[in-house]
Amino acid sequence: MIKIIKVGGNIIDNPSKLDSFLKDYASLTGAKILVHGGGKIVTDLSKTLGIESQMIEGKRVTDAETLKIVTMVYAGLINKNIVAKLQSHGCNAIGLTGADANLIAANKRKDPKIDWGFVGDVLSTNINIEKLELLLNNELNPVFSAITHDGKGNLLNTNADSIAAVLASALAKAGHLVSLVYCFEKKGVMLDIEDQNSVIKKITPGYYNELKEKNIIHSGMIPKLDNAFKSIGEGVQEVKICMAEDLNDFDNAGTTVRMH
Amino acid sequence: MIKIIKVGGNIIDNPSKLDSFLKDYASLTGAKILVHGGGKIVTDLSKTLGIESQMIEGKRVTDAETLKIVTMVYAGLINKNIVAKLQSHGCNAIGLTGADANLIAANKRKDPKIDWGFVGDVLSTNINIEKLELLLNNELNPVFSAITHDGKGNLLNTNADSIAAVLASALAKAGHLVSLVYCFEKKGVMLDIEDQNSVIKKITPGYYNELKEKNIIHSGMIPKLDNAFKSIGEGVQEVKICMAEDLNDFDNAGTTVRMH
Repeated sequence: MIKIIKVGGNIIDNPSKLDSFLKDYASLTGAKILVHGGGKIVTDLSKTLGIESQMIEGKRVTDAETLKIVTMVYAGLINKNIVAKLQSHGCNAIGLTGADANLIAANKRKDPKIDWGFVGDVLSTNINIEKLELLLNNELNPVFSAITHDGKGNLLNTNADSIAAVLASALAKAGHLVSLVYCFEKKGVMLDIEDQNSVIKKITPGYYNELKEKNIIHSGMIPKLDNAFKSIGEGVQEVKICMAEDLNDFDNAGTTVRMH
Repeated sequence: MIKIIKVGGNIIDNPSKLDSFLKDYASLTGAKILVHGGGKIVTDLSKTLGIESQMIEGKRVTDAETLKIVTMVYAGLINKNIVAKLQSHGCNAIGLTGADANLIAANKRKDPKIDWGFVGDVLSTNINIEKLELLLNNELNPVFSAITHDGKGNLLNTNADSIAAVLASALAKAGHLVSLVYCFEKKGVMLDIEDQNSVIKKITPGYYNELKEKNIIHSGMIPKLDNAFKSIGEGVQEVKICMAEDLNDFDNAGTTVRMH
């Protein structure tokens, strides 16, 4: 089972949490891929450099100057420090963007209403599966920052959750068993949002419908779970939604979304 | 013959020169590795961020804050833009630091007189030849920024010329034919420094001694040529010293240093 693990800004921004997450990640057995988000370093650096971060509906508009910062911080500072740390824990990591080895091509977003700038959207058909398998088959552990390219010489800022999802779908379509793991700030999907002990261990499509009908799942979780079921529908074996801190007990961590 | 090409700041800092260099590089046939320097972007960004760049004998002292900037600019901004451009020219590049795939481990410099900070020194025995061959044997074109790691979780700022030299020596020792190419601002080693047409096509050890005895080679070239002969002595087939602009005529470009 290939594990694809997405970790977000809440861990990246916290050096001690990141350190302990990377130790747990390094000790996971088998083929694995890490996809990391950015966190607030980009916003802080933009501010220091006097470049305004334009956000629309919580998403960053990426003009040429912002792309430079995003590339420096995501593909340089964060990615290479994660790789060096993983190496020190005995995990042979290789830090990548989608441009490297042409692993993930993307399409520059076309939106008739908003110019998003250098933002890329990805499809599972955009993955260079042959080169990805080459790395995985040779005990290399890809670490992706959320940067892709358009094949025309431009880097593109891309959503890290989407990158994790298309990597998972592409590997599943190529015949691999894939477990897609989203680390977030809660223990998992909960029956009662106030009770950290009410984590739902497993959700299947039937149970998901039941939970939605009974209004047990709160609105913020619905897009996450819809995306999880989309991945399952595309052949991904399971999607896990859990806390980064619980990776040290992978099998029991968080909520697992499965077809059956 | 594996080509290892080092390109420096004079090209990196000039977008149109860089573009045309990358086109020429992409069209070179056979296995190849690019090693790039930094240029003045680091100095400019440090200045903007109010971080003082301390230089001793022309070398940068790399404290923790400077290391962050160097990592952002070399491994992020410059490296990934080179990779994206090479991809657009049909060259399947993969951007790397020494930390990636544990390709180049280094030793943190120990100098009793000066604290250089996060600066690494490399040996040809520090190269992970198995993983480097894996990439080269699978039509991937490594592009190295001059960052290595100490295996203990720290990135290290490293001289790009030295990285190119140890990669060349390690590949030569592993039985490959290797051509090491240093791109610099002149046409090659010249009999008359005022005359761009006086490029010496080929230098062998005997001829080198003759040129030195006659004081024909000016002092700035001597360390460059000493290093070239060191590489030749370690089994590198040839070392070329040429202008980046002349790569489009690789066989005739610049000065070639050879044993015979």
